[in-house]
Amino acid sequence: MTDTAPVTCALLVIGDEILSGRTKDKNIGYIAEYMTNIGIDLKEVRVVSDDEDAIVEALNALRARYTYVFTTGGIGPTHDDITADCVAKAFGVPIDVDPRAVAVMRERFKPEELNEARLRMARTPQGSELVYNSYNKVPGFRIGNVIVMAGVPVIMQAMLDGVAPTLKTGRKMLSTTINSEIKEGDLGTALREVAKHHPETMIGSYPYWDE
Amino acid sequence: MTDTAPVTCALLVIGDEILSGRTKDKNIGYIAEYMTNIGIDLKEVRVVSDDEDAIVEALNALRARYTYVFTTGGIGPTHDDITADCVAKAFGVPIDVDPRAVAVMRERFKPEELNEARLRMARTPQGSELVYNSYNKVPGFRIGNVIVMAGVPVIMQAMLDGVAPTLKTGRKMLSTTINSEIKEGDLGTALREVAKHHPETMIGSYPYWDE
Repeated sequence: MTDTAPVTCALLVIGDEILSGRTKDKNIGYIAEYMTNIGIDLKEVRVVSDDEDAIVEALNALRARYTYVFTTGGIGPTHDDITADCVAKAFGVPIDVDPRAVAVMRERFKPEELNEARLRMARTPQGSELVYNSYNKVPGFRIGNVIVMAGVPVIMQAMLDGVAPTLKTGRKMLSTTINSEIKEGDLGTALREVAKHHPETMIGSYPYWDE
Repeated sequence: MTDTAPVTCALLVIGDEILSGRTKDKNIGYIAEYMTNIGIDLKEVRVVSDDEDAIVEALNALRARYTYVFTTGGIGPTHDDITADCVAKAFGVPIDVDPRAVAVMRERFKPEELNEARLRMARTPQGSELVYNSYNKVPGFRIGNVIVMAGVPVIMQAMLDGVAPTLKTGRKMLSTTINSEIKEGDLGTALREVAKHHPETMIGSYPYWDE
């Protein structure tokens, strides 16, 4: 039934601010829809805090299991931005300021603006490729099957557009929605029979609710 | 520095529809904020598909690690609602229609409405306690440190209100936001020094962006 191997991915969302509820994540839904549209199957999402052990452990678990791992968050200029270091640690490679990233950032920043904090954003683990960011130039990066992106949605979206053409993709899921005003509890038994006779089709039932 | 032990939790979001992007999750942010407000530290979130192996593996990983695990999704009346069975499997206990759940559901459904599909919603793993749902009566349940809730936000919220008074809670995080119009790249170096001198305080920097 399959003409190409399935291409899978996971998303690792990094940031204390998501887990505390201070910031409401907008990237999971966006990336989920984006992946479905280009034929990559998002299999798992994890959200972890700005904690080195938690990030490294999640990265290593996910990159061993899926074709790609996307990360969002933790690549800004402040002390709580530790994603790049954690990726380097997960891969066991050194990390340093990347002259290619500095060159790209010079298109946006004046020399005196490229201070210690901003130069942290130009650090990449050895062996990385830059991910182009049309929005504000500061690049993401890719190492192996891990793609590291910003947490600010508009920047993440620019990076996703930058990296997507380089990804292998699989069959796109064909999806159809049938709306009905039948209650789920009245539909369940019959729908189970339909699902049983079509094991190759993912059939879901999603109630809507007047809230 | 600590007068009570920290109370931690994880959230397991279950559903193909979240990973495909069809449905945008609204529960992560709500639960994150709720937990912060009652003094429980949300440490990790995972989103997995309606797949038994994925659910059981995530449940067992999370319940061993945190004080509580909350799940959302997969407890409705249709064939893709397999959460209760997966929880029973993770705990190694049988599952059956729970007379206490049926009794509660009789408050809402007529006898003829309690068909096979709806009675599936009354199944709980052996050793569970019901979680009260003021919104539409159909209960969630709790077994050990795992609390199983619906995915529809208004129902999940009712279940969270039902279970919250029974949970142990820890110190609440005191949180202050300082707004500034300084660019993150200009603030980073100085803020790192402040953070270094206050290791007991979580200091984050969250840029806002004119999108």
